[in-house]
Amino acid sequence: MNVEDAAATALAEADASFEIFRRAPAEARARLLDAVAEEILALGDDLLMTADAETGLGLPRLTGERARTVNQLRLFASVVREGSWVDARIDTREPARTPPKPDVRRLLVPLGPVVVFAASNFPLAFSVAGGDTASALAAGCPVVLRAHPAHPETSARVGAAVDAAVARCGLPAGVFSIFVGGGHEIGLSLVRHPFARAVAFTGSLQGGRALFDAAAARPEPIPVYAEMGSTNPVFILPGALAERGAALGTALADSATVGTGQFCTKPGLIFAVEGAGFDALSQALAARVGAKEPTRMLYGLLAERFRAGATALAAAGVRRLAAAAEAAPPAGSPVAWEISVDDFVATPSLREELFGPSTILVRARSPEELVRAAAALDGQLTASVHGTADDLAAAAPLVARLERKVGRLLFAGVPTGVEVCAAMNHGGPYPATTDARTTSVGTAAIHRFARPLCFQDAPEAVLPPELRDHNARGVWRLVDNRLTRDDIGAGA
Amino acid sequence: MNVEDAAATALAEADASFEIFRRAPAEARARLLDAVAEEILALGDDLLMTADAETGLGLPRLTGERARTVNQLRLFASVVREGSWVDARIDTREPARTPPKPDVRRLLVPLGPVVVFAASNFPLAFSVAGGDTASALAAGCPVVLRAHPAHPETSARVGAAVDAAVARCGLPAGVFSIFVGGGHEIGLSLVRHPFARAVAFTGSLQGGRALFDAAAARPEPIPVYAEMGSTNPVFILPGALAERGAALGTALADSATVGTGQFCTKPGLIFAVEGAGFDALSQALAARVGAKEPTRMLYGLLAERFRAGATALAAAGVRRLAAAAEAAPPAGSPVAWEISVDDFVATPSLREELFGPSTILVRARSPEELVRAAAALDGQLTASVHGTADDLAAAAPLVARLERKVGRLLFAGVPTGVEVCAAMNHGGPYPATTDARTTSVGTAAIHRFARPLCFQDAPEAVLPPELRDHNARGVWRLVDNRLTRDDIGAGA
Repeated sequence: MNVEDAAATALAEADASFEIFRRAPAEARARLLDAVAEEILALGDDLLMTADAETGLGLPRLTGERARTVNQLRLFASVVREGSWVDARIDTREPARTPPKPDVRRLLVPLGPVVVFAASNFPLAFSVAGGDTASALAAGCPVVLRAHPAHPETSARVGAAVDAAVARCGLPAGVFSIFVGGGHEIGLSLVRHPFARAVAFTGSLQGGRALFDAAAARPEPIPVYAEMGSTNPVFILPGALAERGAALGTALADSATVGTGQFCTKPGLIFAVEGAGFDALSQALAARVGAKEPTRMLYGLLAERFRAGATALAAAGVRRLAAAAEAAPPAGSPVAWEISVDDFVATPSLREELFGPSTILVRARSPEELVRAAAALDGQLTASVHGTADDLAAAAPLVARLERKVGRLLFAGVPTGVEVCAAMNHGGPYPATTDARTTSVGTAAIHRFARPLCFQDAPEAVLPPELRDHNARGVWRLVDNRLTRDDIGAGA
Repeated sequence: MNVEDAAATALAEADASFEIFRRAPAEARARLLDAVAEEILALGDDLLMTADAETGLGLPRLTGERARTVNQLRLFASVVREGSWVDARIDTREPARTPPKPDVRRLLVPLGPVVVFAASNFPLAFSVAGGDTASALAAGCPVVLRAHPAHPETSARVGAAVDAAVARCGLPAGVFSIFVGGGHEIGLSLVRHPFARAVAFTGSLQGGRALFDAAAARPEPIPVYAEMGSTNPVFILPGALAERGAALGTALADSATVGTGQFCTKPGLIFAVEGAGFDALSQALAARVGAKEPTRMLYGLLAERFRAGATALAAAGVRRLAAAAEAAPPAGSPVAWEISVDDFVATPSLREELFGPSTILVRARSPEELVRAAAALDGQLTASVHGTADDLAAAAPLVARLERKVGRLLFAGVPTGVEVCAAMNHGGPYPATTDARTTSVGTAAIHRFARPLCFQDAPEAVLPPELRDHNARGVWRLVDNRLTRDDIGAGA
């Protein structure tokens, strides 16, 4: 079967299963998500060893990542069981009004088959049964998954686990299908197929933009949620710098190099003002990075790109502050750099993410220069501001500038380690993502795969449970502009 | 000043004002919306006479439309005052967890300057201070408005009213600006400018798609909410047909011709099964349409297009069921048609909207043919199903099919006359709109112009009021997965 036929077959099965899946009770969807978690755990530590062999991420990290993956699936199961995510709204009729007001009820319904592109850097949590798959299934959308070529065996095993869960739950096989192997063509064929209703992607700017462009050029355009990474700038204000410059240097060195720097939220730029604490920051950063060991990157091409990027930085005149021992691909050798704000602003290539264990300290001469540097930044997943209360009071223009550039603003800690929770936002203005209106981490991700459907003057028998007079599922509903879990006409 | 400079100036002013507008208290935004309503009312009936002279819609309709426009503005003011639309979510810290859980809080924030293209067919309610402008301002976004060339004087007068409201509220003038006159170029220049963050449009498929394509091709793509109309199919099931065929024919004739058929929700296709009541339906439809008077259309080109469309229908072999007296443009002469399901399915051009007072009765031989016809339809703003309880029980496959095609599904009444309320959805799958995830009518429209912003471990002083421990605004918030209006730590 050629690539286009294979894509068409998978999406035809997904579309056929959608009719059943979208009408299945919420509990059936929740059980599927729980079952996927169980099937993944049932693969045992063998799965982790496979993933380690393919990615080099190490068993401790992969053990944690498996826990996150399973927790994500269960978290979405709980969201689906609770049910209020459908944002039910009911405006009751007013027959006496002129003209009479109809009965109007709406809720969110799933979009249809979703094409998910797995990421390389989280072989479990952002891959076959990762956040995108979990949130799409939670919304009621079948998933056609394109595995990342860097961990095919891990993908195939998790894919089989999802298939087993689908079968165990008595759902049609088309609810989930997976493509392992093959070239880029299969991805574009999936995105262009008329049955695809949305796309989720985590990866490079180039890859994400290509999918976005293909989806926008369709006869019927569809949304693309591409998370493409960012430089995650960190701003250290004078008071915090004086107070804890060295500690911040050490913490940021660890955050920039953990997992061989292969996180979308790696702090790639650190801005600080010359003065008390700056040398302590710079020295601690250099010492900590210099003392790191080179570690393996996810795949050879990535390591080569990282090496080429580091060479380009040096060629652009960026000063090497410290480097771990040299190492050939697929290893990545941690490195820290320094440059002035003037040179940073004058060198657009420094605004691009360098994926790997590298971070650049940008030296400002004044707090105003921090604002100037912030103005030069593109859209970001995160920015961090470290400051005392006095610092922050003085830095309102900087914070205001950053609020417009990012999806998440941190005031303590480091950007790596994204909490999976209701309030999380893992997204941000382009080029961090192609759709700043959404998140790819946390329970709000379910909304990416849904749209409103409105019923006017519908008999009860036609309405989904969440919109009937009797609120059997007990979901929160906006009834005549009042948020309530009451039945309609309960007082009558 | 050339077109590009004019666009750049307006958007630079909008962007500068955004920094002030987005930080203004909710009450300031609400007061602006109320002030716009007041300033429009202060223009008196003079405004209605200007609009009538430019559009020919008549004073009774325009009086109602003004009331709707003012009510919309006030409704959004109430949404902003109440404040829960920001979807505040707070996950409190757990320092004892391994690793410690940070404090994570998010809310929706405005996107930035919005380019709004006014519609021709609602010179008040979907024009300068219409739903798009009201919802964008409510979200905290400055508006740069492109007036529709069919009612320049009305646009200029309402534009001046908005300017007066902005000035009276002490807000920067860049919060609203308007372009009256000029060619299409100004619109594209606005959409392509880097400071534009979103686009709202109501009009033709061709126009909406051109804006969508321009926005998708930007270095930094932005969302386009284009509402492009639909054929709004009506399905009459056998029981309902037998019971009230004649009454439905009359009601649908009125709905298809009211306002010279110039509504996005005009019922352009009526499907019914041969048998008891069919002739009554057909005859009532024909009699009512045939007895109508030709009335003026919004502008000459629209009337010419309508005339050409009717000629094309006749040439395609569609049978003319009834027609009002012939009339030359700018008048539009009501007309009804009949065709079989077979011919309908075989003629793709019949799936396109014919804007004006025309509707096609499609004759099915069986209920199964209705499902076949539904399968052939594109995405729609609305579909209607008229049936008895028994009809609907038997028509589950038809309803299921329609649920996937539409934004709103009606079971009584007619699709024209869109209620402005929280539960309304005026949107739908492409080509009805370019973004089925959103509505352009009703309070949920505010969400089109917002995105999540997340604060992690932020001190209270940095947080917006809706995210502080003390819930001074009393908004609903999801706190540790529980919906509440309580303060954080209230029990401590």
